[in-house]
Order: sequence, then structure tokens, then C-alpha cells
Amino acid sequence: MEIKVVRNILEANEVIASQNSALFAEKGVYVVNLMGSPGAGKTTLLEHTVEHLKDTRKIAVIEGDIETSRDAERIAGHAIPTVQINTGGACHLDGNMVRSGLKALDLDQIDLLIVENVGNLVCPAEFQIGEHHKVMIISVTEGDDKPLKYPLMFQVSSVLLVNKIDLLPYLDFDMKQFRSDALKVNPKLEIIPISCTTGEGLDAWYRWLEERAS
Amino acid sequence: MEIKVVRNILEANEVIASQNSALFAEKGVYVVNLMGSPGAGKTTLLEHTVEHLKDTRKIAVIEGDIETSRDAERIAGHAIPTVQINTGGACHLDGNMVRSGLKALDLDQIDLLIVENVGNLVCPAEFQIGEHHKVMIISVTEGDDKPLKYPLMFQVSSVLLVNKIDLLPYLDFDMKQFRSDALKVNPKLEIIPISCTTGEGLDAWYRWLEERAS
Repeated sequence: MEIKVVRNILEANEVIASQNSALFAEKGVYVVNLMGSPGAGKTTLLEHTVEHLKDTRKIAVIEGDIETSRDAERIAGHAIPTVQINTGGACHLDGNMVRSGLKALDLDQIDLLIVENVGNLVCPAEFQIGEHHKVMIISVTEGDDKPLKYPLMFQVSSVLLVNKIDLLPYLDFDMKQFRSDALKVNPKLEIIPISCTTGEGLDAWYRWLEERAS
Repeated sequence: MEIKVVRNILEANEVIASQNSALFAEKGVYVVNLMGSPGAGKTTLLEHTVEHLKDTRKIAVIEGDIETSRDAERIAGHAIPTVQINTGGACHLDGNMVRSGLKALDLDQIDLLIVENVGNLVCPAEFQIGEHHKVMIISVTEGDDKPLKYPLMFQVSSVLLVNKIDLLPYLDFDMKQFRSDALKVNPKLEIIPISCTTGEGLDAWYRWLEERAS
């Protein structure tokens, strides 16, 4: 029974997501939907990304959180347009929430919009928001068994950022097995190991983004 | 609109959760609902817990996962009754899923049932399964800002296990702030820092469980 309800919600969401998508095309805005578990490093990655790209791209950020505007405050500190969406309990952003957030942005002045989804390895993967690409970030502290246990997010993402690789010496994380499992779930997945602490790997991520948001 | 749908699901769930609860009371089974993000250390904690208690308590485990039976295989290796529930996409266990799982267990032969929920810091907190207590596990690698950003799970839990404290030297995690925020959200929360790697703190957790499952 519940699955039926979820299906109805998803269909209703698709309609709004398509409208967002058409608006982004009209305004020439490239949109990324950034997803991952709580604490995977989404906001820290965003801070680095914004700092690196803000001189060459007109960036804006939409922050999705259940409560608080902490993440938006961190991003707004980098002097770019930032919108906080509080979902008030909902465990993901949907097309309609993002549409509401867009009203607070001047899309004519934006090349690149990064939407940071609610921290959750499951539900955000089901809801389109009108984005061009889904990008997923996972930290190696979450364990190497995640691709087979939470396949949907790996399946729908174009890029997988594997964060906190500076902690690998202290963990029992099999990167080879992890990569192989992730590619089994999604053979087209681009996998980029990074550390937001040391900066390792971030250049490859910036390049990926720069090629698309131009 | 979506919130209304969620409310209907929740009401329907309450009815089944109460039936589970009555069954547990009748059979004298103490039930814990273990929740936390992917990779917080739920299954590893369970392996330690089962190993420590299995000589003095009749334990059984229900494993909730979206896909795979990997976690159940890990637990079943400890020679206790184990049931795997694959939610097939759903991001939490609900009362009905647990009821289905109970059919595979002989409750007359069980003192303590631990239900490991789907890895997710959000949705599992909303769904009763008929448990006596909710226990939450978070790893310090997830960051110290979680209590205010994901308040519901902290609010509904009786115990908060703060895992992976062996990694604290390599992280920027303010335990004092974290405790204070967690207690702001739920003043009755019992907070137990642990490391499943070194074993630190686990005795306090075992004692908590032993006092209740007797």
C-alpha cells in the first residue's frame, strides 16, 4: 500500500521537476544535485568548490536541511547567493521545494546552481529536482559495503566523490572492492577519491564541474 | 500535500506497532530499535553485543536493509536466530515489516530482540515498530553538528551511542558541544561514547541493555 502512495508522490514530482528543468535551460543555468549521508562532507566540499570557482563562474547554492540554517550560513560566508530550504521533517528535497527556493534567486545572474540535498543515502535519490546531474559524496568512514546495500543513489549519480581518504590509514576500507561494487551497480559512474582536509583529488572534481558549467 | 500522505501512513503504522507491542508484552520479549546513518557502526555494534550477551540472554536479531542479506549473514555467524527484511527501496522499517519478520521467530524462545533499522538518520525515527526503546548510534566522523540538524532521532531515542571515538584525534569534533546540543534536543538522552574498534565504553552499553532484558 505504501509503495503505491510513494509512486503517486513521485509522479506528481516529475511534472514539477520538468518545469524546473525547462526554466534552467531557458536561463542557461547548469544545475547539480549533491547528495550523500549526514556528515559525508557535502557542505565542506561546497565551501571549497565555491571558493575555487567563484571568480570564473557565477555560482549560487540552495541548501536543503530538515532544520537550521547552519549550512547556508557557512556558504553565504563565501559571498555568493545562498538559499536555505528547511524541509520541516521531510528527508529529501523535491521539485516543488526547489521551485520555491528559485524564487529567491535571480537566475539571469547565475551560471552554476548547486543544490545540497538533505543528508540521507536513500530518499533524495528518488526525487528529481530538474537537475542536469546528480553527484553523490560518500566518506570512507561509512564503510566499503555501501554500493550493494544502497544501490539506488549509486545508480542515479553521474559522479561519486569518495571523501575523507586522509583517514584511510586508520580504517578498514577496501577501495578496490568498493570501486568494483560501485561500478557493478553503475558502470558509467565517474569515481573521484578526494580529501577536503588535504585537498587531494579536488582538482579532478573542479575540472569535471568547470567543463559542464561554462 | 505530501505531509498529509505521510500522516496517513503514520497513523496506519501506529495500529500495527501497538499490536506488535502487545505481542512482545505477552511473550516477555524486550525489544530495541537500533537506528543510525549508513556506516555509523550498527552491525558491528550488534556483533559485539550478541557475542557479549548470548550466554546470559536468549537473543534474536531482525536486520532491516534496502537490499542484500550481508548484515544478517554477519549476525547469523554468531549462531543466534536472525531474520533479514529487505525493504525493496523503503528507507525505514515500519510496524508491518517487523510483524512479517516476527513470523520467522519463535518468540517463546527469546528474551531480547534487537531490530537493526535501515541506515538513515531521518525516516526510521518516525515509524514505531512496537519497540520498548529506540537506541541511536552515530559516529564521530559524521560531525558534531548533527543534533540540531537532525533533531527528531535524538528526540525519540533513549540512548545515544557515540561511536568511533578512537578516531577523535584525527577529527575536528567538539564532544562537549555535541553533548550539549544533543541534551538540548532531548534532556533525558543517555549518552554513551564508545569504540567498537578498541571496545571502550561498550561495558556501559551492555549494562544498560542487561538491566532491561532480564
